[in-house]
Amino acid sequence: MKMIITIIHDEDSHRLLHRLNSEGVMATKLASTGGLLKTGNTTFFIGIEEEKVDFVIGLIKEECQTTKQMSLINPPISNMPEGFMSYPVEVTVGGATIFVIDVDQYLKI
Amino acid sequence: MKMIITIIHDEDSHRLLHRLNSEGVMATKLASTGGLLKTGNTTFFIGIEEEKVDFVIGLIKEECQTTKQMSLINPPISNMPEGFMSYPVEVTVGGATIFVIDVDQYLKI
Amino acid sequence: MKMIITIIHDEDSHRLLHRLNSEGVMATKLASTGGLLKTGNTTFFIGIEEEKVDFVIGLIKEECQTTKQMSLINPPISNMPEGFMSYPVEVTVGGATIFVIDVDQYLKI
Ligand code: NI
Ligand code: NI
Ligand code: NI
Repeated sequence: MKMIITIIHDEDSHRLLHRLNSEGVMATKLASTGGLLKTGNTTFFIGIEEEKVDFVIGLIKEECQTTKQMSLINPPISNMPEGFMSYPVEVTVGGATIFVIDVDQYLKI
Repeated sequence: MKMIITIIHDEDSHRLLHRLNSEGVMATKLASTGGLLKTGNTTFFIGIEEEKVDFVIGLIKEECQTTKQMSLINPPISNMPEGFMSYPVEVTVGGATIFVIDVDQYLKI
Repeated sequence: MKMIITIIHDEDSHRLLHRLNSEGVMATKLASTGGLLKTGNTTFFIGIEEEKVDFVIGLIKEECQTTKQMSLINPPISNMPEGFMSYPVEVTVGGATIFVIDVDQYLKI
């Protein structure tokens, strides 16, 4: 038995939980903050048989892919002509940090 | 040293925390949701000496036993005589999922 | 790769998170309660390379040191002259409980 601890973006957490449940994978969701992921994040504890670890990592990859989005940024220089007041930059959203931990003993009572 | 991570029903969490404290067992309580336990649940982190793991699992079993309760369910068929509008079914509540994890290093500062 | 799970007092959590971030250490913050630390506490998950575990433990020690504070306590005996209604006692605040756990597999996606 293994425990997968994964820290993902809030925006992906509802979709991932539904996906895991639909595949019969037990997951517990904890509210979390901070970390290098600057926006709100969610931590999942997923108890899983060793032979299914790669399958679950695949599900996380599918549901929490990083994507590039364009975001408007104001330039630091303030005395610019109006049309140059803001410009688009590419930002990366989504992604996941995954830890797989060995479980000594697993029980359901 | 071991860490016991246990996911239990909200309704059992206050009683379990009191029981663990009264036995001198350190526990940390985290709010959690989701998982196969559909109602609200609570996650405990319990740091414990290896020789006391079975003792703590025994405490969790005592305080978080599954019980059968009768619950009234509305049948899916709507055009039934009034007396048949709802019927009792047996539902299982309580229970716990327990993971025991090995701890490399333990410190109190 | 190791995971450090540390339970600290709420009052130290913002300072510790800033310190960890400034040292480039990834940390996730979870709200927690209970445990032997009677006041509110916070749980951090810190993913870290094995060779930096002692460095991170050093940071936690620096930011979450126990300190002695004087606190006014009412004596249990009620029929005392007014000047004796409360007296100062030394209480210990701060501190941390630290668990270091081995990580089988670590991924960032
Ligand atoms: Ni939903
Ligand atoms: Ni109470
Ligand atoms: Ni700040």
